Amino acid sequence: MSTAPTGPWRAEGVTRELSERGLDALLVTNLVNVRYLTGFGGTSGLCVVSEGDRFFMTDFRYTERAEREVAPTGFERVEAGREALEQLAERMGRAGFSRVGFDDAHLTVRQHGRYADKLTGIELVPAAGVVEGLRAVKEEGELAAIRAASALADEVYGLVPERGLAGRTEREVANELEHEMRLRGAEPSFPSIVAGGANGALPHAEPGADVIPRDALVVLDMGCRLDGYCSDCTRTFATGRLSDDASAVYDLVRAAQQAALEAVAPGASAAAVDSVARELITAAGHGERFGHGLGHGVGLEVHEEPRVSQAAEGELEPGNVVTVEPGVYVAGELGVRIEDLVAVTASGHEVISGFTKDLVTVA
Amino acid sequence: MSTAPTGPWRAEGVTRELSERGLDALLVTNLVNVRYLTGFGGTSGLCVVSEGDRFFMTDFRYTERAEREVAPTGFERVEAGREALEQLAERMGRAGFSRVGFDDAHLTVRQHGRYADKLTGIELVPAAGVVEGLRAVKEEGELAAIRAASALADEVYGLVPERGLAGRTEREVANELEHEMRLRGAEPSFPSIVAGGANGALPHAEPGADVIPRDALVVLDMGCRLDGYCSDCTRTFATGRLSDDASAVYDLVRAAQQAALEAVAPGASAAAVDSVARELITAAGHGERFGHGLGHGVGLEVHEEPRVSQAAEGELEPGNVVTVEPGVYVAGELGVRIEDLVAVTASGHEVISGFTKDLVTVA
Repeated sequence: MSTAPTGPWRAEGVTRELSERGLDALLVTNLVNVRYLTGFGGTSGLCVVSEGDRFFMTDFRYTERAEREVAPTGFERVEAGREALEQLAERMGRAGFSRVGFDDAHLTVRQHGRYADKLTGIELVPAAGVVEGLRAVKEEGELAAIRAASALADEVYGLVPERGLAGRTEREVANELEHEMRLRGAEPSFPSIVAGGANGALPHAEPGADVIPRDALVVLDMGCRLDGYCSDCTRTFATGRLSDDASAVYDLVRAAQQAALEAVAPGASAAAVDSVARELITAAGHGERFGHGLGHGVGLEVHEEPRVSQAAEGELEPGNVVTVEPGVYVAGELGVRIEDLVAVTASGHEVISGFTKDLVTVA
Repeated sequence: MSTAPTGPWRAEGVTRELSERGLDALLVTNLVNVRYLTGFGGTSGLCVVSEGDRFFMTDFRYTERAEREVAPTGFERVEAGREALEQLAERMGRAGFSRVGFDDAHLTVRQHGRYADKLTGIELVPAAGVVEGLRAVKEEGELAAIRAASALADEVYGLVPERGLAGRTEREVANELEHEMRLRGAEPSFPSIVAGGANGALPHAEPGADVIPRDALVVLDMGCRLDGYCSDCTRTFATGRLSDDASAVYDLVRAAQQAALEAVAPGASAAAVDSVARELITAAGHGERFGHGLGHGVGLEVHEEPRVSQAAEGELEPGNVVTVEPGVYVAGELGVRIEDLVAVTASGHEVISGFTKDLVTVA
């Protein structure tokens, strides 16, 4: 249940895009997009957006909830009966739609077949990404929700030194930190990573029964979801004395992260921001050990637009919220990743993550 | 990481189905099905099954893991490069495939377009449900995994009386019970339901900030996932003295649940089992208040085949694992649901859930 303010203006963003694409309406089936546009937080529903007609359909189980959540965005509520697709067809026919965009990156082949079957006289046109494009630029209320989720994650990071790392299993630490999020009314925005020693070299390690070693590096990657909005933050801790090599890798990643962070600004190309970190890491001889993109957008989903990588084509703009998370992974030995969440502002950027990036040693 | 034994015989089940459908091969993209067939538990990969050729593709991040997990099932491992679809096309062409089944209930329209683009000379034929059909009949190792997940959930149910319900928020109780699952090495198989008083009348209630009242009914619906396999169990507790009406509803649901449970046997039609509970509830005047099917299959997913409802067409067979969960929901007042997990055996059934169905009063 989002408390971030939503309203009819989001659907207006969709209708602007529709006219550019020559579409009469957009059929929105991805629930994250449905929520973004209508405010509905349940698990079954769809909405249709056009210039003159905006409606939301769900079944009887969610009628009350829809009344409460959807009313502020001005979508008409339609209760779906057993023949929901017939109802939808009738409604669209009445509105006179002939070209309707659909989310081809979300609808399955089978679902598409069912819609196409029932929506006679309507051409379904692939139109993935319309709502995702709007979502990439956050409103002030969304930024506030992301800041709150991030502040809560910072608080949980603050517990790490007192709870300890070395000698505990990765899973025990992950469970405990996620429980602390839940005690604070949030939930993890993705399965937390706690990866000690050589496990830190696996960017997608799952916390398991391995005991975190002493005198090693430990990668923690976690975030909160609060009121629907996500945060995402990675810190690498030490559990004692580090080798010179390990310390050097930490310092390198930290410097690369800081440099890339400083390059985040409106108009900066996402690929160029990635390059800032990548060139520093490559110059130090670790280029092959940074095998992922620099970052990704964060909002209602923990991975969304815009992407920040060599393959990214766009430029950053005010309202984007992205991660900056370079890493160096030395197979069989160690990993270091440092990740901040950062908002692009009108004049530069705002670092949202608050926990220190100085190397913290936890016995 | 599943410890339930898997092996090449599962893929053999697929090839039998392929010859009946006139298909050369099956392209498996749904990760749950990939895991079932190959043993691979990572989050990126696909497999192809044919009579003579079985291979699994994943990217470099998962090469090591695939080596360890996939080897026992006999799938050849192929490391996908940047042009994974070209690789797949080349491999399929080499194998001489012309008609290849795909999961139309899983592949998106966009993904399908990409596959169709690259797999020139190959006809992609909708073939959803092939693997799901196999998964509906559990092997002994899978039954053992489900029993273990269920036993763990029973243990967590056993904590409810000592931890208390009335006066606590639903979310607090849900968080605590889920944390207890995690402390035991499991995770929730779905977001737990804790719904007190009138909230119990919402079959899909989300545990929130509402305080659980005294002298009321509380619906708890939760399950564990352990080694990949799920359990699912609902119990309705009392928090004090109940009205005669509330007691009567509890007794009715319990009797309906018991009667339906006894009807579970090989050869019984799934719809008929649903009817056993539904007729008892209808005869008591609450038919309209049991607005969902009796149950569903449980395995690697908490909702899978076979369904047990009025709309179900098949008959139960040995190895099916289903829930039996009638409910009565009195809007604005209360809800009662009682759910057991039950396996169909050669001669009848085995109730897997172990926690008592006598009404437990928790102060």
